[in-house]
Amino acid sequence: MLLNASPDLRQQILANPGLAPQGEPRDSPIRAVVATNADIDHIAGLLSLREGWPFRLYGTVDVLDAIGENPVFRVLADSLVERIIVAPETPFEPIPGVVLTLFAVPGKVPLWSETGMVETAVDDGRTVGVAIGNGSGTLACYIPGCATLPMPLQQRLRDVDTILFDGTLFADDEMIAAGLGHKTGRRMGHMPISGEGGSLAAFAGLGTGRKIYVHINNTNPILIDGSPEREQVIAAGWEVAEDGMEIAL
Amino acid sequence: MLLNASPDLRQQILANPGLAPQGEPRDSPIRAVVATNADIDHIAGLLSLREGWPFRLYGTVDVLDAIGENPVFRVLADSLVERIIVAPETPFEPIPGVVLTLFAVPGKVPLWSETGMVETAVDDGRTVGVAIGNGSGTLACYIPGCATLPMPLQQRLRDVDTILFDGTLFADDEMIAAGLGHKTGRRMGHMPISGEGGSLAAFAGLGTGRKIYVHINNTNPILIDGSPEREQVIAAGWEVAEDGMEIAL
Repeated sequence: MLLNASPDLRQQILANPGLAPQGEPRDSPIRAVVATNADIDHIAGLLSLREGWPFRLYGTVDVLDAIGENPVFRVLADSLVERIIVAPETPFEPIPGVVLTLFAVPGKVPLWSETGMVETAVDDGRTVGVAIGNGSGTLACYIPGCATLPMPLQQRLRDVDTILFDGTLFADDEMIAAGLGHKTGRRMGHMPISGEGGSLAAFAGLGTGRKIYVHINNTNPILIDGSPEREQVIAAGWEVAEDGMEIAL
Repeated sequence: MLLNASPDLRQQILANPGLAPQGEPRDSPIRAVVATNADIDHIAGLLSLREGWPFRLYGTVDVLDAIGENPVFRVLADSLVERIIVAPETPFEPIPGVVLTLFAVPGKVPLWSETGMVETAVDDGRTVGVAIGNGSGTLACYIPGCATLPMPLQQRLRDVDTILFDGTLFADDEMIAAGLGHKTGRRMGHMPISGEGGSLAAFAGLGTGRKIYVHINNTNPILIDGSPEREQVIAAGWEVAEDGMEIAL
């Protein structure tokens, strides 16, 4: 999750796609990064933000420890990239006017640190969602990975205007059915969209405002325009995120 | 350095840019990867090749140890990605008909493992070039990082038909002059193109065949069409590599 501080910089980027903002020999609109877990798809991108540009990196102690203990992330120089440990349920303001609160969601340890039997829905702060607010209320929640949706989490999401939620797989066994792996979505720490205990069912009665699937695997048929699965999620009031999507809060 | 085994797969990719080859639900033309050092720009891409596709990973003991000791690279499952340690000056055949030989070139430890004073031109196998042959001779050499070009290395390159060589910076101090850093090219383990001891001078008398600059930093003016620096390297018989370039050996 990348946070962009300046509307001016943003306008410059929109006007010059592919270019860094003008005025400095090099620049980046990224002022802060929040890592919601320590899996490769959430932290490897940090290696593309190296070297020489300052930003702040936020996460829970487990996530920042995983990054801090790994030598390749030393390319993010301590003098430029401040690591800030944030406890769940503790609001912080990474850029002016944007107040975030991390909250634990059910998940598992990163794939690269799995050993032996793996608990796939542990609620210990290794995987978090992000409540995005303006100081006077929650405007949106970002939850790219979530293994189950227990009642307290459902309650938290009930009054949220916009939710960006884990849309990894449509069917829990779709990777197995396609011959592309031996793991279910739940084994990977992702509740499926469809079926009993899926996110379509879990959100059906919550009255959440805008609902957007993110973190969508390339086996997921909701990516295909006109597919029955895409029609089904749209009929249930969901949107399917796409590159370049803009969300006004 | 990625090695593609199958002309058929390659034709499929060329005919369907952006698509995986057809015939399997997922596929990749990559059969083997050779890591020439353990800096981020040479190993972080491995994290994008995960999971579930088999290939072989070759490198010297120092480079493969750096990868093997780092937990995030466990996403490349041992059962699928065989690590093969190769000693310098020992030919190996990662795909049929292609014989490679690694050779030590002057370089430094990876940025992420620097501590204290750093020797920037050590010839110990942590940084290598790759001689690419067909079993009966060297057809090309790939050297994306090289701190100096001592006489034995010059001798090796004298009879090579095609060389792909470190073109990181044009001027040793160009990042400092641009206000973009405090390091020279040599401090980063890269000999400059221009000036005394630069690659233009070092290759001037070698009679190498086709010479192509690769690994070009985004401060390097040879990237700009029509720049005096680009004209200078072209006048000296060099080419400037670009995305999608094809090289027939």
